[in-house]
Amino acid sequence: MELIEHLTFLFLVTLLSCHATLVLGDRSSYIVHMDKTLMPKVFPTHIHWYSFTINSLKLMTTNSFDDHRKPLRLLYTYDTAFHGFSAVMSKGELEALKKNPGFVSAYIDRSVTVDTTHTFEFLSLNPYTGLWPASEYGKDVIVGVIDTGVWPESPSYSDDGMSEIPSRWKGTCEAGQEFNSSLCNKKLIGVRYFNKGVIAENPNITISMNSGRDTKGHGTHTSSTVAGNYVVGASFFGYAAGTARGIAPRAHVAMYKVIWDEGSYASDVLAGIDQAVADGVDVISISMGFNDVALYEDPIAIASFGAMEKGVLVSSSAGNAGSIGSLHNGIPWALTVAAGSIDRVFAGGLTLGNGEKFSGWTTFPAPALVKDLPLIYRKNISYCNDTEALSTIGYSIVICEKGSVYGEMRFIANSSAAAAVYISDDAYLFEFSDFPNPGVIVSTKHAQKLIDYATKSHASATIHFQQTVVGATRVRAPVVASYTSRGPAPSHPGILKPDLMAPGTLVVASWIPNTSTSFIGSNIALTSDFVLASGTSMACPHASGVAALLKGVHPEWSPAAIRSAMMTTAGHLDNTRGHIRDSFFNYEIATPLAMGAGQVDPNRAADPGLIYDATAQDYVNLLCSMNYTKNQIRTITRSGYTCTDPNPDLNYPSFVTLYNENTKYDVVQEFNRTVTNVGGEETSYEVRVKAPRGSKVTVAPAVLRFGKKYEKQSYSLRIAYAGNTSGVVASGEIIWVEENGVHKVRSPIVVAPMIPVW
Amino acid sequence: MELIEHLTFLFLVTLLSCHATLVLGDRSSYIVHMDKTLMPKVFPTHIHWYSFTINSLKLMTTNSFDDHRKPLRLLYTYDTAFHGFSAVMSKGELEALKKNPGFVSAYIDRSVTVDTTHTFEFLSLNPYTGLWPASEYGKDVIVGVIDTGVWPESPSYSDDGMSEIPSRWKGTCEAGQEFNSSLCNKKLIGVRYFNKGVIAENPNITISMNSGRDTKGHGTHTSSTVAGNYVVGASFFGYAAGTARGIAPRAHVAMYKVIWDEGSYASDVLAGIDQAVADGVDVISISMGFNDVALYEDPIAIASFGAMEKGVLVSSSAGNAGSIGSLHNGIPWALTVAAGSIDRVFAGGLTLGNGEKFSGWTTFPAPALVKDLPLIYRKNISYCNDTEALSTIGYSIVICEKGSVYGEMRFIANSSAAAAVYISDDAYLFEFSDFPNPGVIVSTKHAQKLIDYATKSHASATIHFQQTVVGATRVRAPVVASYTSRGPAPSHPGILKPDLMAPGTLVVASWIPNTSTSFIGSNIALTSDFVLASGTSMACPHASGVAALLKGVHPEWSPAAIRSAMMTTAGHLDNTRGHIRDSFFNYEIATPLAMGAGQVDPNRAADPGLIYDATAQDYVNLLCSMNYTKNQIRTITRSGYTCTDPNPDLNYPSFVTLYNENTKYDVVQEFNRTVTNVGGEETSYEVRVKAPRGSKVTVAPAVLRFGKKYEKQSYSLRIAYAGNTSGVVASGEIIWVEENGVHKVRSPIVVAPMIPVW
Repeated sequence: MELIEHLTFLFLVTLLSCHATLVLGDRSSYIVHMDKTLMPKVFPTHIHWYSFTINSLKLMTTNSFDDHRKPLRLLYTYDTAFHGFSAVMSKGELEALKKNPGFVSAYIDRSVTVDTTHTFEFLSLNPYTGLWPASEYGKDVIVGVIDTGVWPESPSYSDDGMSEIPSRWKGTCEAGQEFNSSLCNKKLIGVRYFNKGVIAENPNITISMNSGRDTKGHGTHTSSTVAGNYVVGASFFGYAAGTARGIAPRAHVAMYKVIWDEGSYASDVLAGIDQAVADGVDVISISMGFNDVALYEDPIAIASFGAMEKGVLVSSSAGNAGSIGSLHNGIPWALTVAAGSIDRVFAGGLTLGNGEKFSGWTTFPAPALVKDLPLIYRKNISYCNDTEALSTIGYSIVICEKGSVYGEMRFIANSSAAAAVYISDDAYLFEFSDFPNPGVIVSTKHAQKLIDYATKSHASATIHFQQTVVGATRVRAPVVASYTSRGPAPSHPGILKPDLMAPGTLVVASWIPNTSTSFIGSNIALTSDFVLASGTSMACPHASGVAALLKGVHPEWSPAAIRSAMMTTAGHLDNTRGHIRDSFFNYEIATPLAMGAGQVDPNRAADPGLIYDATAQDYVNLLCSMNYTKNQIRTITRSGYTCTDPNPDLNYPSFVTLYNENTKYDVVQEFNRTVTNVGGEETSYEVRVKAPRGSKVTVAPAVLRFGKKYEKQSYSLRIAYAGNTSGVVASGEIIWVEENGVHKVRSPIVVAPMIPVW
Repeated sequence: MELIEHLTFLFLVTLLSCHATLVLGDRSSYIVHMDKTLMPKVFPTHIHWYSFTINSLKLMTTNSFDDHRKPLRLLYTYDTAFHGFSAVMSKGELEALKKNPGFVSAYIDRSVTVDTTHTFEFLSLNPYTGLWPASEYGKDVIVGVIDTGVWPESPSYSDDGMSEIPSRWKGTCEAGQEFNSSLCNKKLIGVRYFNKGVIAENPNITISMNSGRDTKGHGTHTSSTVAGNYVVGASFFGYAAGTARGIAPRAHVAMYKVIWDEGSYASDVLAGIDQAVADGVDVISISMGFNDVALYEDPIAIASFGAMEKGVLVSSSAGNAGSIGSLHNGIPWALTVAAGSIDRVFAGGLTLGNGEKFSGWTTFPAPALVKDLPLIYRKNISYCNDTEALSTIGYSIVICEKGSVYGEMRFIANSSAAAAVYISDDAYLFEFSDFPNPGVIVSTKHAQKLIDYATKSHASATIHFQQTVVGATRVRAPVVASYTSRGPAPSHPGILKPDLMAPGTLVVASWIPNTSTSFIGSNIALTSDFVLASGTSMACPHASGVAALLKGVHPEWSPAAIRSAMMTTAGHLDNTRGHIRDSFFNYEIATPLAMGAGQVDPNRAADPGLIYDATAQDYVNLLCSMNYTKNQIRTITRSGYTCTDPNPDLNYPSFVTLYNENTKYDVVQEFNRTVTNVGGEETSYEVRVKAPRGSKVTVAPAVLRFGKKYEKQSYSLRIAYAGNTSGVVASGEIIWVEENGVHKVRSPIVVAPMIPVW
């Protein structure tokens, strides 16, 4: 039971999912896309058609080398987000299937990756003005969460104060293991679970929790973040104490469990999203993603296209891989969310015997008493890795200056020390909540002062734990999280991803009660009903919650309109009024490849002025411009669309130009955009442009005049990159500023080196 | 920092106080009683008189061998509970003082001993009926608490919902170190502190917290138990979680700090009680006592006589010495409170891999996760004291069957074990909250079953922590606490003491935030705003709170009437409807020497039917019958009383006959009692007597008839002890049962061997 075990729980499923194709004997699970318009009239429903198709395959291949004794099994049929089914098939059976006239495409099932509450305040949500009162806190909106299930007994799912379930709701509360259907209520209005895919790939396993009940905590955390009810007295072992609540505390939640202790597969994810759309959710929140996969083989991309068609925004996480070009969910018709920090510090107050005070960092999960103890600094123990030297220090506070804090903690745990002061500036330490021994981390800039004092005789110190400082300007926020995956999106780098950033670091939300969330020492594992978790998984539900609130205020807005409103109003400045920084890149100015348009700003998003809208056909036109086969496109779009107007220039509220680092040459790219006036009636906007360094940006016209609401106007934007700043990511912006009005409509512009794309 | 350090905090001051007389150079502090009626008319106030007296001593003795360079110093003057002063004097000065005509007596200052919330429910207090609604929860009643000070920031001292401070209140909120007078409010209406005594005895010390601020926690606990405001979400590390409140949650509190980190002295205690009475408190709660001291040298006895005269009941603790005849505060005009348990269990749920469940005991102060781990029993490690053998067990649950749990815990803490199952039935373990390592204590009756299972292969277990079971009939309650001091009272065994019992074991109330209240392992000390403390110190404020509620309902009742109502309605049956048991005596039936009349029953006490009243003169008559000198008596009673009618037969609601174990002979003792009808108008009562084994009890008359309210009737009770049950404490009772009415007026009878008396 090592420390590392609880460090990893955030990325649990990430680790589970790094394998690529899983073969089941000679059979595998495939996801099959079908053209439903070609369904023969003899079949009353698509289920009959798919079943017949599967059964006929058996007949067709029964004399082949395939093992016909094993049943060829239909796992799911999909009919809402896309048309098709998933089934366990041999390669021979698959080849036979391809001869079916309705066949569009098929791909092997694959593993899925999940990413992992003063946040509402940090986002300026408040009861007096803006999006909360305007949307009645998300009343009547339904958010579908695709995740690891839910712990329904968590107080976040109480339905105190909730309105009735909307009559349009078609979902259900599926009973299962340790899950009675009466566990649903007016908050948690639906629970379903999907594990045929994982069982098909692992036929000998037993599903350890065969129901919508969460065994990981992840889904409980994300769903309570997006729409958890108010919980008085929530805290993580005394830190971040207060009243917890979701971003849309009056929205309804429906959970679709698709991730299992035994594995997680695309077919189950697809089934979950498909069902969510069929059930009537308004927004889908999905804190997971498929790595290294093309859009036409990415179940989230495929299913979210169908969701988008039905007016349902899919909000997804960018991933926790950190580096440039590692982003997943780079889906042009979905929202892709990066993670940032918030203005909250978990402080350990260090007071020296001479009265001097230092604010350290600690999340030690108990109210430790470390009061007036000797403060010790000795050269031979300053690395805190010498058991023998540490044995001489008694019940004291030791200064450890090596900086590898988790390693030092293990030695301190096995010594007689009461606590330690760790000297370090490692950004990673402040993004996670592991702190199994009493102590504080203090910045290297205070090291000399501390050591000077500690080498005096009778040096002593006191440490106060469980201090939470909120709204502090001493901490710059938001800062882009070190772990958040950066764009460009390998699946389609031509659209700038991520779209925006939301709080993802040390977010407090509900957790399951039967897993360890912290350690004291190396042997004592602790549980907590609320945890501080970090990841883009935590950022995504914040954005999903904002989208739900916007849906409540503007039910007529398309998914593209909601996304546009969130992007063009996002903030690129932090609480110091300086540009948002990036903790991974030594706190330099963050680029749109890290944070998209910037930090989501819910209240401004409610009234964006102009909207960059897009229809399903616009996305089809984009797909048609890509180097995809007809069936690859149909896998996403299904039938009903044609490639008459291929166009890579999607009407997107951001701009990206990529250049090839190895061949220096000028790049000129022209974009055309159409904006819709959703602000006042007669108004006009004037352009302000800040070109990325090394590029020239021209916009025409410079003024957009609108005679009435919902009128559209178009403009063109031209980026001319001089080709002389090799390897540099350069950022700019275009802002349409309303004349005599309040609206500013900002889009980021980024010029960056091209990344390898599949 | 050993475990033992936090085991002792409950008895902190007990340990501090075992020394007897403290001599300051050649001078000591003396408490001097004066006859104020002899004060010459030339002095405008008693302070002038006492100052003059002290100063004249200096003149009288200046040529003696006393060191006249040191100032002879007046510490306090006392004018309410008794008349006199305390001062630092040499023996020569004391002799000179004795010649003063106003001199009554003097004795050397001495150290004081302190003893140490579902309880209100266990006492059946409820908002719907009985004493809470009748008294409006103690509204307008003022309780003075003589203790270690108070932590005013504790939420128990919030004045939310409190009524205005009664206009009769003459107290103040004394400012001092880290104590602004604005810290008082409508709940905590007064704070004063008294340390001239401790400083006089220790002139070179610095008072570390020179104000009413509590540095121990004891006073914060007792005062919040008696009258703390409602605190939502109180718990001791998740145990006993709920809304904390005092017994009289709407009463006002005044704190008189008399106990110090630097020591605790009678002169300061006297000053505190004296000032409390002068300030106008209605009830005094004092959870401390002087051991091995005669009434005329016991400051609590002396000061409580003055309080009683002014209608103020002093409620005191019996002490934590446990054994027969060890009781302190055996004061005939005060209430003496023993401690018992309540019907609450801090359970650790132990579930074996085969599904079998055991309810263990644990107060491990964190939400430990001990789930599906190997359960290990091996002969060579079953005593859990072999470091080398324990090193082989890995991250598992070990069964320890030696039974010395705290010793075993240390070995477990230093092993790789995740937790342990300790086999023990030691009652002491269930009276305190120390549990520094994950584990549970399971009864020896389950040992074989556990061991049988654990020796099977793949044995595993899960332990659930932080379970609190309340109102459980699986636990017999109340049970007399093992630690509660038993009567007879050495200071005057002729009156049965203690008077009654109240909850004292594992009582949740507020604590100070800057001392350790628990440990995890041996190195991690924890703090908590609420603690589970055990002692008669915790029982006393329960009784004080009930007395405060009664004072609210019956403001005209004398201290003796309040005590009588509480005693004659106390319960001698537990929650199994069997007789209350005594945990110190192997759970045999508890005698009145352990619990007095039994467990206080607040709602019944509000309507006792009959009252055994007593006036100040009655107590003087008792004192006159004792083997005291005139000045010893006057030390207690001051002037104004005469010994015209000495009478050992105080009108007390209990009966004790003591026999000499060494000389077997028959003892016959006759008691006369007068009861006052405080129930209905015209009524009658019939006697029911249960004689102690070996004795014959006769009562005459057998029926008492009352024509109207407040009418008095008398009866005689005769105990004839046959002298043939040497060494045995035998219990009986007399109950006056109302004919056609609801009242039953019960008094305990006890026949016991005489103890050594000074």
